[in-house]
Amino acid sequence: MKKKLKLGVFGFGCVGQGLYHVLSETHGVKAEIKKIAVKNRDKQRILPAELFTFDHQEILQDPEIDVVVELIDDARVAFDILRQALQNGKHVVTANKRMLAENLEDIFQLQQQYDRSVLYEGAVCGSIPIIRNLEEYYDNDLLNSIEGIFNGSTNFILTKVFEEQKSYEEALKGAQDLGFAESDPSLDVQGFDPKFKLTIALAHTFGLFIKPENIINLGIDKISSVDLKFARENGLTIKLIARAVRQGEQVFAFVAPQYVPAQHFLAPIRNEFNAVVVNGAFAENQIFVGKGAGSYPTGSAVLSDISALTFDYRYEYKKRQQGDRNSFSNNALIEVIVSYPESSPLLPQDFEDFKGGYRGFGYQYMRGTITLARLAEWGQRSGLSVILAPDARPVAQSGLPIKDLLYA
Amino acid sequence: MKKKLKLGVFGFGCVGQGLYHVLSETHGVKAEIKKIAVKNRDKQRILPAELFTFDHQEILQDPEIDVVVELIDDARVAFDILRQALQNGKHVVTANKRMLAENLEDIFQLQQQYDRSVLYEGAVCGSIPIIRNLEEYYDNDLLNSIEGIFNGSTNFILTKVFEEQKSYEEALKGAQDLGFAESDPSLDVQGFDPKFKLTIALAHTFGLFIKPENIINLGIDKISSVDLKFARENGLTIKLIARAVRQGEQVFAFVAPQYVPAQHFLAPIRNEFNAVVVNGAFAENQIFVGKGAGSYPTGSAVLSDISALTFDYRYEYKKRQQGDRNSFSNNALIEVIVSYPESSPLLPQDFEDFKGGYRGFGYQYMRGTITLARLAEWGQRSGLSVILAPDARPVAQSGLPIKDLLYA
Repeated sequence: MKKKLKLGVFGFGCVGQGLYHVLSETHGVKAEIKKIAVKNRDKQRILPAELFTFDHQEILQDPEIDVVVELIDDARVAFDILRQALQNGKHVVTANKRMLAENLEDIFQLQQQYDRSVLYEGAVCGSIPIIRNLEEYYDNDLLNSIEGIFNGSTNFILTKVFEEQKSYEEALKGAQDLGFAESDPSLDVQGFDPKFKLTIALAHTFGLFIKPENIINLGIDKISSVDLKFARENGLTIKLIARAVRQGEQVFAFVAPQYVPAQHFLAPIRNEFNAVVVNGAFAENQIFVGKGAGSYPTGSAVLSDISALTFDYRYEYKKRQQGDRNSFSNNALIEVIVSYPESSPLLPQDFEDFKGGYRGFGYQYMRGTITLARLAEWGQRSGLSVILAPDARPVAQSGLPIKDLLYA
Repeated sequence: MKKKLKLGVFGFGCVGQGLYHVLSETHGVKAEIKKIAVKNRDKQRILPAELFTFDHQEILQDPEIDVVVELIDDARVAFDILRQALQNGKHVVTANKRMLAENLEDIFQLQQQYDRSVLYEGAVCGSIPIIRNLEEYYDNDLLNSIEGIFNGSTNFILTKVFEEQKSYEEALKGAQDLGFAESDPSLDVQGFDPKFKLTIALAHTFGLFIKPENIINLGIDKISSVDLKFARENGLTIKLIARAVRQGEQVFAFVAPQYVPAQHFLAPIRNEFNAVVVNGAFAENQIFVGKGAGSYPTGSAVLSDISALTFDYRYEYKKRQQGDRNSFSNNALIEVIVSYPESSPLLPQDFEDFKGGYRGFGYQYMRGTITLARLAEWGQRSGLSVILAPDARPVAQSGLPIKDLLYA
C-alpha cells in the first residue's frame, strides 16, 4: 500500500540533522535517506562518510531517489535544485521560505508541468501544520484573515527584552547562541523572514501569488527604550505581527511590530513559539500555537511532508481555483504610534488622521492613522520607531488609490 | 473529479441549521441536502416542507443518498441510524460525541465491514480540526499527551464566574440562554461531555478504544466559593481539564477541574473557546484554539467532513496500527486541593502523600497526592470539592497496582 521512499537530502544543518533523528526514532514512515549532499568537506559528521556527497548531480540524477529534501540556506541554489529535481521526476520537500516566497508562482506551474509534488510545511512556522490545514480543512470556509507571530527568533528577543530587562543586544546574542536566529540575523530582525512566510500563506489563504518585495515589512531593529517604557506604562507588550486581511475582494498584507495588550491571546506566546490565527466566516478565530523553530519541530514538519508523499499527497492550491476575485493592495490606512529621540521630525499633517502627541523628558511620540506607503517610508527612516497601535487593523483607503510611494 | 454528494440529514437543531447555512454560503463543496429527518411535526421550519421527513427510512433506504449526516441528540437512536446507513452503503458524518464515545470500537469495525467512512470532526471541540490533525499530521510523531479545555459551556460558566463575579447559577443560566449548554446541562457541568470527547481523542492519539465509564470524570458542579477565594488569592483560575498522558506504555486519562496559574497558556482561553494541547516527542507542544460550540463553528466542522468525503477520505486509525503496546490504566497518583465547608471529613492518612492543610473562618482545605481511584470516590462525595493542584500531572503508581475502587 505505502511505498518505501528513497530520499536525497540537500544540507545537513540544524533541520537536516533534526530530520535524520526524527526519521530514525519514528516507526511507520516508509522512507530512508539514501544520500546527503553537503558543501563543507572538512566538517565532522555524525554519520558514515559514504552517506554524503559533494556533487548535487549524484542525487539529482539518481533514478532510485524518489524525493529530494532541500534544506540548504541559499535560495537561488535551492530553487535550482528544486527545478532540476522536478524535471528529473522527483518530488520535493523543502523548508526554504525565501526560495518559496520568491518563486511560488513558478513552483506552482512546475508542479503541474512535471506532475510532481512540492511540499513545504516546515517553511511556515516550524511545527505548526498551517499549510496543510489551510489546504485540507479550511478549503470551504470564507477566510477573512491570517495573522500572528511568524518568527521565533524575534519573538524570543522580544520576550527576553520584556521579561528579563535585558538590553536589545544581549537578547539577540542569547537567541543566536541558542540557534534560533539565522546566520544572517537581519532577515529576522528586519521582518523579512516572517514576510516570506506570509507570502506563502497568502497563496494558501487567498489564492494570491505576490512577490515578497511588494509586501511591506518593518522589523524590531528600531524599537527603542522609549517604546519599551511606553509599553510597560500602558500594560502592553510588543510583538512582531505578520498579517493578511481581506476586505471585500481586496487583500492587505504586511509585517510590523505592534503593541499588544497584556490580556490579548498573542501576549502569552513566548520565546520561540509562533502563533497563527485564521479567521473564517464559519469557523471564526482558530489559533494554532507551536514551536516556530528548532531542529526537531521543523524536522517533524519535514517528516510529515515526507509521510504525506508516501500517500501521493499534493497541494491543490484550492483557493487559487476559488478565489480569483481577490486582489492584493497596499492602499490601506493603519493606526501607528511613532516615537523619536529628539524634537519631532514629523508634522501632524503627515498623518491622514492625527490623534495626538506627547512630549516629555526624552520621551516623545505621535499617534495617528497613516497610509501603508507611509508606514513603509517611515519604517526606513532613521530616528523614527513606528509601532502599530494596539488593535490597529488595516482599513481600505476610500476614493481613488493614492500614489503608491513605494512602488511608483 | 469531485463527486456531487447527496446528503440525508438527521436533526435540524443548532448544528443542523448551521450546516444548512454554511453549505449554502460556501462555494466549492459539491454537496446538496436531499432530505432532512426531524421529529417534531409542529415546529415551524425555515425551509420548504417537502425537504423534511418524519420517516428515517425515507433517507436510509434512498439509494440516491450518499452520505447520512447525523445530528440528533439521542445516542442510541443515533447509533442505530449510523449502523443502518453503513449497512446500506452510505458514508456517515456525525457530531454525536456520546454515541461515538460509547461505540467507537464497533464503529471502527463497521467501517471496515461495510467499506464505508464515518467522519466526526464536529464531535470533538467544535471547529478545532483536532481529529484530522491527529490522523494526518501527527501520524509519525511519538505522542506523549493530549489535553485541554474540551467543553465550551463549562468554560463559559467558569469565565463568567471569575470575570463577572456572577453566582454559579446566574452563569449557568447565561450559558444556556446563549445555547451553549446542552438540553441536559449535567452532561456538561459534571464533565461527561468533555469525557466523551477525550474518549474519541484517545483512539486517534494512542490507538486505544476505552469505554467512557472507565474514565474518571469530575465536573464543575461542586466548585464552591471557598475554591474561588483560594484561586483569587493565589493568582489562579479554575479550568475543567480533559487529559490523557502516556508514561512509557501506560496511558492515564481523566477529566477534572484544575487550578491554572494566571500566566499559563490555558488561562486566557475564555468563554466558549476550547483549547487542545498535543505534546509530541518531535513537534513538542502544539496548541489548537477555537470555538468549541455553536451553530456555525460546529457546522463548519461537519462541512469539512462532507468536503473530505468528496475526496473519499477515511480515518485510518493509524495509531491503532502502530500503538498496540499502549494500555489504559487508572493506577496513577495526582496532587489535589480538597476544600470542605465544615470540620475536616478527611484525615491526613487518606492521602498517599499529605502536603498540609489550612483552617480558617469557613475556609479550610487539605492538599496532597491521592490515587485516581480516590479522586473518583471523593469527586462523588457530597461536602467535598476536589480540584487538581496547579501543574498537577498523573504519575504512575509504583509497585503492584492497588485495588481499583471504581471498577472492582
